[in-house]
Amino acid sequence: MADKKLVEEITSMEEDFAQWYTDVVKKADLMSYSSVKGCMIFKPAGYALWENIQHELDKRFKATGVENVYLPMFIPESLLEKEKDHVEGFAPEVAWVTHGGLEPLQERMCVRPTSETLFCDFYKGEIQSYRDLPKVYNQWCSVVRWEKETRPFLRSREFLWQEGHTAHATAEDAEARTQQMLNVYADFLEDFLAIPVIKGRKTDKEKFAGAEATYTIEALMHDGKALQSGTSHNFGDGFARAFGIQYTDKDNTLKYVHQTSWGMTTRLIGALIMVHGDNSGLVLPPKIAPTQVMIVPIMQRKEGVLDKANELLGRLSKVARAKLDSTDKSPGFKFAEQEMRGIPLRVEMGPRDIEANQAVIVRRDTGEKITVSLDDIESKVSELLETIQKDMLERARAHRDAHTTVATNYEEFKDAVNNKPGFIKAMWCGDRACEDKIKEDTTATSRCMPFNQEHLSDVCVCCGKKATKMVYWGKAY
Amino acid sequence: MADKKLVEEITSMEEDFAQWYTDVVKKADLMSYSSVKGCMIFKPAGYALWENIQHELDKRFKATGVENVYLPMFIPESLLEKEKDHVEGFAPEVAWVTHGGLEPLQERMCVRPTSETLFCDFYKGEIQSYRDLPKVYNQWCSVVRWEKETRPFLRSREFLWQEGHTAHATAEDAEARTQQMLNVYADFLEDFLAIPVIKGRKTDKEKFAGAEATYTIEALMHDGKALQSGTSHNFGDGFARAFGIQYTDKDNTLKYVHQTSWGMTTRLIGALIMVHGDNSGLVLPPKIAPTQVMIVPIMQRKEGVLDKANELLGRLSKVARAKLDSTDKSPGFKFAEQEMRGIPLRVEMGPRDIEANQAVIVRRDTGEKITVSLDDIESKVSELLETIQKDMLERARAHRDAHTTVATNYEEFKDAVNNKPGFIKAMWCGDRACEDKIKEDTTATSRCMPFNQEHLSDVCVCCGKKATKMVYWGKAY
Repeated sequence: MADKKLVEEITSMEEDFAQWYTDVVKKADLMSYSSVKGCMIFKPAGYALWENIQHELDKRFKATGVENVYLPMFIPESLLEKEKDHVEGFAPEVAWVTHGGLEPLQERMCVRPTSETLFCDFYKGEIQSYRDLPKVYNQWCSVVRWEKETRPFLRSREFLWQEGHTAHATAEDAEARTQQMLNVYADFLEDFLAIPVIKGRKTDKEKFAGAEATYTIEALMHDGKALQSGTSHNFGDGFARAFGIQYTDKDNTLKYVHQTSWGMTTRLIGALIMVHGDNSGLVLPPKIAPTQVMIVPIMQRKEGVLDKANELLGRLSKVARAKLDSTDKSPGFKFAEQEMRGIPLRVEMGPRDIEANQAVIVRRDTGEKITVSLDDIESKVSELLETIQKDMLERARAHRDAHTTVATNYEEFKDAVNNKPGFIKAMWCGDRACEDKIKEDTTATSRCMPFNQEHLSDVCVCCGKKATKMVYWGKAY
Repeated sequence: MADKKLVEEITSMEEDFAQWYTDVVKKADLMSYSSVKGCMIFKPAGYALWENIQHELDKRFKATGVENVYLPMFIPESLLEKEKDHVEGFAPEVAWVTHGGLEPLQERMCVRPTSETLFCDFYKGEIQSYRDLPKVYNQWCSVVRWEKETRPFLRSREFLWQEGHTAHATAEDAEARTQQMLNVYADFLEDFLAIPVIKGRKTDKEKFAGAEATYTIEALMHDGKALQSGTSHNFGDGFARAFGIQYTDKDNTLKYVHQTSWGMTTRLIGALIMVHGDNSGLVLPPKIAPTQVMIVPIMQRKEGVLDKANELLGRLSKVARAKLDSTDKSPGFKFAEQEMRGIPLRVEMGPRDIEANQAVIVRRDTGEKITVSLDDIESKVSELLETIQKDMLERARAHRDAHTTVATNYEEFKDAVNNKPGFIKAMWCGDRACEDKIKEDTTATSRCMPFNQEHLSDVCVCCGKKATKMVYWGKAY
């Protein structure tokens, strides 16, 4: 049976989550490996997810005054080196271009791993007066980081992302923009991807190379590991001082600008898969699903069935992104394929349904079958898509809450890491030494100091000294 | 006067067209030079043009069944070398990556100058059966070609483009797709950018490295030079043989696929500027203009003027992409800025207009001033935008036709090159030697063998032997 084969080839997530993930990205036709080690190919089904993410995020960015630009993909070595922490963070993992055509370059250049240095160099020429501020620019592009170990969507040597880079007159304006964009990210994940997140600040150990503060949104995957899903950095005036970006203020004095940057990447596609997927494959929230409804005719060779299916397609296309699978595959194979690809709703309709003026709608997220009258099937489909979007967020939230453990001492902490996959909430003294020890002992890292602080105990879960912060910890992708 | 200054700094196009171009791209705030030699920065006003091009073209592509993908930006040297003509064409102008992080690569890789070889490598794994065909994929990305001389938008070491790559079962299918995409390009230029084009085939000398046939659309700039604005290539089975891309046909025999590729780039922005611009700056066709209407209030500090202008903005925003310039600049400066940026319509409204229930609309393309009643200003604005789009295409077509010369002998040909800037239509024997001689003698190149052939004379304009084709010639960007 072809239909069974398609599903049987997926490892179950309980058996081997990593293998399940690899199986799903391949079987749902999202990606392909390439001849370039560590770089992947986004196939149409995978790229369509990124297009939808891009379209929606871009709209939300523009609503906050963001303008798009495009800067070169190369960074001369001397430019990369201008900010000390930044170059230390990135130099070990960049790809170097040494020749242009047949000749060696006078100065080698790296392919951008991120573009802070290019934006600083650009802003230096663009900003003279307070009238030139703020600059709120973003670019959609690919970046390269020479990772040793790679996994589709989660970590690859080249990935797609957006990077926003802003310059402001005051520290307050920069901080406000940093937080504003983190909120845009969080709302986008919850509303569009149905992924609930924890918002917070990274510890100094985990912050971005060159940043004064890094804010993050952290999501919990089905296997209990955390995924950093978007970050927003406040640079203060550090880069401005390194690059000499100054403006004349209203009071006629020369001041340094304050800068931010913020980014989201194609790893969001990995998050989608690992938060919502199941043992039949991908499960897509309706808002991002390139196809929301797949109509599968039953006994399609019987006279009138395909005509009726086409008529239904016309009607449903007015309320949803609908498709009709009229290929000569068996219905069972079509069902398995639609499930594998995570299409939110399947509509089955055969001769007997037509006679009874009805169709059977099957929810991808729950498997629930609903027989509906053809008379008002449009409104039923619209309603179900909204319900699924809401239910998926609620289920993901319930899963996360059920996989969040409070630890008040180190024994509880270690027990949680070993036996309760998920987030661990625990108090921390603020010392890097405790973070290092926890990572060494358990492989768990600090995910963030959440904005919503709770007082779980008075002392650090690791050293027992006075606690200063409640921290989310976890194993992470 | 600040307003005059903005304009005075533009060189007139009659005086020095190249300098006029450079002035416009800078003054209209489209781009900025970067620290990376030969690479440019797309500023918001420039990138917005590309976004609009991308959005519209992508919609037209998808209507013909194109699916978007994303392939790596790197090509291993051994992969680039697989197709002989192709590597010869591109190897001299690629950027080479030799180090990843701190270590030298085992095999160096170039940054893609174009992705035929990557798509072939990809398709080899994806295509087994006739059921897998056709593949009609496209990607939006940046590419790198290590040019010696660069000019903003027209020729830079990195540029943005789309590249479509398709694989088909038969030679006929490949040829049909090659022509279909050329037509998509031509329609897009005429309809959206208001740029008329000549459709035709490139001579063997001018065709793409590795192609069996290259089709092109050629546009004429205001200075009489030609700009190749989009190309579509039929590869036959040449790449398929070099890469071993075969499929099992219905008759159970193994066959090579037939392939095409087609691309358009950010040089279209250069075309827009050079076809429509004037001595006051950019002139944008309404369909592509990011802002279509700029409202400039007169005596805006007078009570009620800004309120009324905001009310008008609300109304016009329903029918067009409208903005209100309520900054504290003088109206004259605002006019000059709106003209420089090529915004199709300006709406001026001061206290006396308000009293008379009217506003003054000024067309950017003609300078014509039209006093209209506020009662039906929306419909007047819609109508004018349509008229401008149509008129701009007609004017560009008239300019091209007035700058197309027929040459029936070599004296006429040389006279035309020297004294009549524009296209030259002339017969050709088909020999490469004549093309070479014409280029050496005059710097003019064959632009294309148009699909609409005319019989101008019996003999080749250069050698006097029997002519086989009518060719468009010209100096080109």
